[in-house]
Amino acid sequence: MSAILCLNAGSSSVKFSLYRYSPEAPLLLAGSISGLTTDHQYLTYASYKSSGEVLESIKNEEIDCPDHDSAFKVFMEHLDSKEGDKRILDSLDDIYVACHRIVHGGANPRPLLITEDVYHELDVLSDLAPLHNQRALDIVHSCISRLKKTKNVAFFDSSFHMTIPRHVYTYPIDLDVQKRHQIRKYGFHGLSYAFITHETADFLGIDDSDLNVIALHLGSGASACAILNGKSINTSMGLTPLEGLPGATRSGSLDPSLIFHYHSDSSRMSTASSKDMHLTIAEDILNKKSGWQSITGTTDFGLITKRAVEENDEVAKLAFDMFADRVSMYVGQYWVALQGKAVALVFAGGIGEKGKELRTAVIGKVSCLGFTIDEELNSVASRSSDVVFDVSKKDAQLKTLVVQTDEQLQMAKEVIAARL
Amino acid sequence: MSAILCLNAGSSSVKFSLYRYSPEAPLLLAGSISGLTTDHQYLTYASYKSSGEVLESIKNEEIDCPDHDSAFKVFMEHLDSKEGDKRILDSLDDIYVACHRIVHGGANPRPLLITEDVYHELDVLSDLAPLHNQRALDIVHSCISRLKKTKNVAFFDSSFHMTIPRHVYTYPIDLDVQKRHQIRKYGFHGLSYAFITHETADFLGIDDSDLNVIALHLGSGASACAILNGKSINTSMGLTPLEGLPGATRSGSLDPSLIFHYHSDSSRMSTASSKDMHLTIAEDILNKKSGWQSITGTTDFGLITKRAVEENDEVAKLAFDMFADRVSMYVGQYWVALQGKAVALVFAGGIGEKGKELRTAVIGKVSCLGFTIDEELNSVASRSSDVVFDVSKKDAQLKTLVVQTDEQLQMAKEVIAARL
Repeated sequence: MSAILCLNAGSSSVKFSLYRYSPEAPLLLAGSISGLTTDHQYLTYASYKSSGEVLESIKNEEIDCPDHDSAFKVFMEHLDSKEGDKRILDSLDDIYVACHRIVHGGANPRPLLITEDVYHELDVLSDLAPLHNQRALDIVHSCISRLKKTKNVAFFDSSFHMTIPRHVYTYPIDLDVQKRHQIRKYGFHGLSYAFITHETADFLGIDDSDLNVIALHLGSGASACAILNGKSINTSMGLTPLEGLPGATRSGSLDPSLIFHYHSDSSRMSTASSKDMHLTIAEDILNKKSGWQSITGTTDFGLITKRAVEENDEVAKLAFDMFADRVSMYVGQYWVALQGKAVALVFAGGIGEKGKELRTAVIGKVSCLGFTIDEELNSVASRSSDVVFDVSKKDAQLKTLVVQTDEQLQMAKEVIAARL
Repeated sequence: MSAILCLNAGSSSVKFSLYRYSPEAPLLLAGSISGLTTDHQYLTYASYKSSGEVLESIKNEEIDCPDHDSAFKVFMEHLDSKEGDKRILDSLDDIYVACHRIVHGGANPRPLLITEDVYHELDVLSDLAPLHNQRALDIVHSCISRLKKTKNVAFFDSSFHMTIPRHVYTYPIDLDVQKRHQIRKYGFHGLSYAFITHETADFLGIDDSDLNVIALHLGSGASACAILNGKSINTSMGLTPLEGLPGATRSGSLDPSLIFHYHSDSSRMSTASSKDMHLTIAEDILNKKSGWQSITGTTDFGLITKRAVEENDEVAKLAFDMFADRVSMYVGQYWVALQGKAVALVFAGGIGEKGKELRTAVIGKVSCLGFTIDEELNSVASRSSDVVFDVSKKDAQLKTLVVQTDEQLQMAKEVIAARL
């Protein structure tokens, strides 16, 4: 059997998904290792029969692996240790392609087969986004050294946004400086938006190239995207994922001079810097010590929502309202960016998919544009296994949709479509 | 005769307007001194008869005054040197109140009579906005020392926005830090928005407190404001005037980490700092060396428009399109902030009042919300002497208005209304 391994490295976790290399890309296995920057690491794992039934599952088993490289090693050993009917692949050599989700791809509009030259290029790009690319590159390195026969492909979260027009992606700063330092709006969550585009068009029974939609990928990192004729024409993240909406620990956009009032020496290197990763104090504060955690003390937006709604907790309510407000402002601006031609508003990402209260709050704020929500459908959407779930009111002209986005599956499908 | 002197200090200029202290606040004199940071300074000046006819006028007469203090001195001497029918005030002691437009007023919701304590408070606030308050404070100081009998009142450009709700003015950063350093969204151009609110409501024949409007103050500093029931509920500028829309030399909002890619030591003090004014390299770049000047080489948006429209100049077109795009995005978000209840879109400020091409471009982008523009009316609006000029299409439900805003007159009217 030929298989596709899709890898998605976060700052403290790695997600692994294994698909059969065939038109429908059936899932063979999905797993993750979390806690890589803490004292305890946990493996979660489910493998599947070809019928879709669970073959074997493990939840939060404590394991010992201090970093991304060892996480990859542990996972591969685990996969290779299975015997009898629990064994998924005859040999690790069956992994024909490994797909790597890399956040920052510069201006690359499509995935790249990782040759030595490309690896060097990715390493250089890492300077542009040290906080976001380094872990994925660690995994690329692990993969190259451990799976000698596997092709490695880099998928970039920025690629989907390379259709944004120049007057939108250009910043109002010195043009030469922008050119010299590759400064521009890039945008991220592109694999998710590509997945959303295709699944939404499919659900509505139209071609991808006819789809006009406002999409919200709301998770611990959150962004919005205006999609015209199936292509991104604006998105809230920028040069890095910091711009735009706040996240669990990210500030999102704020007065660019704010950080100089926050910390007097903010351009100095942070103690969070490492040999591989150079980071200013400012970037450390705004990426890691801000967002709703800095307001409420927790990164868990579900818990914040619970405190705000059930306990009427003032600070939780503030964080919830701040987020709903900023999200609704992007819906307003992208409604204009699409010249009022949007046919749907899509909620995706952990919070977008699970946060029924947030969906209600946002739709309440943007109902003037014609979006609606059916509270009964909204309350069951999070429990549905449908990839696209319509929560709009009956006969609504404009759709409000919840899409269970899947970045790993998107990579596998692109591999198959390109017959890599 | 009792008079009100209104002073408006910019970084390189001072505007002076003198009004009679009477219900209609008739203008006695309007003047300015420009070029205060360059080698040549110019005085422009017009005085008026009670009939409104020009009594005397001077245009760009070269004078010698190197700084704001001497500009004030020169102006007062000039005023006091007039004799016969060209003399406006019997004595400078007739200046009952001097109104000072001060950009950053912290969280003060209303003007303050400048006592010694208040002067100290203003001095402290100056740390929050060194680039914006220092010159006005120089003029306050000149005024106190030269006009012994005159009351001095500080008007803050931030006061109008003190009605913005907490979840909108709070940044997604550490709450304690925000409290300790007085960090929040303040917003500016408040005198202009107060003027626009009153004149627009008057024009529409409704009470100020019934007015829902999206207002754009577009000049070399540019901002947008959502006004609900006559009160600001959101605005594009933030902790400082840097946030939001780009300006002549300001970047406006951008990825908060951008500056660390632009300049590796951006939190160091700039050589543009002075004894009174401490400024980081970042703040200097983003406030003084960015905006459309950094794209096109000129601060003159009229010239950029001409090059873009008549000469099809690529870079000018880029700058024009960037500005029109960002303005239209704010119209979209404030449409949502007002829950679709806006009855008008107002263009004001130098570019808003004179830039017919920009108005056409913005309305083209936001027509999906129902705004319209009559090209014939639009082309004559800039030449009209009406304070409010309607450029919408005939029978349009939503109005597109051009308002000739007047921050000095707003201060004079507030003095009279408060019977100061």
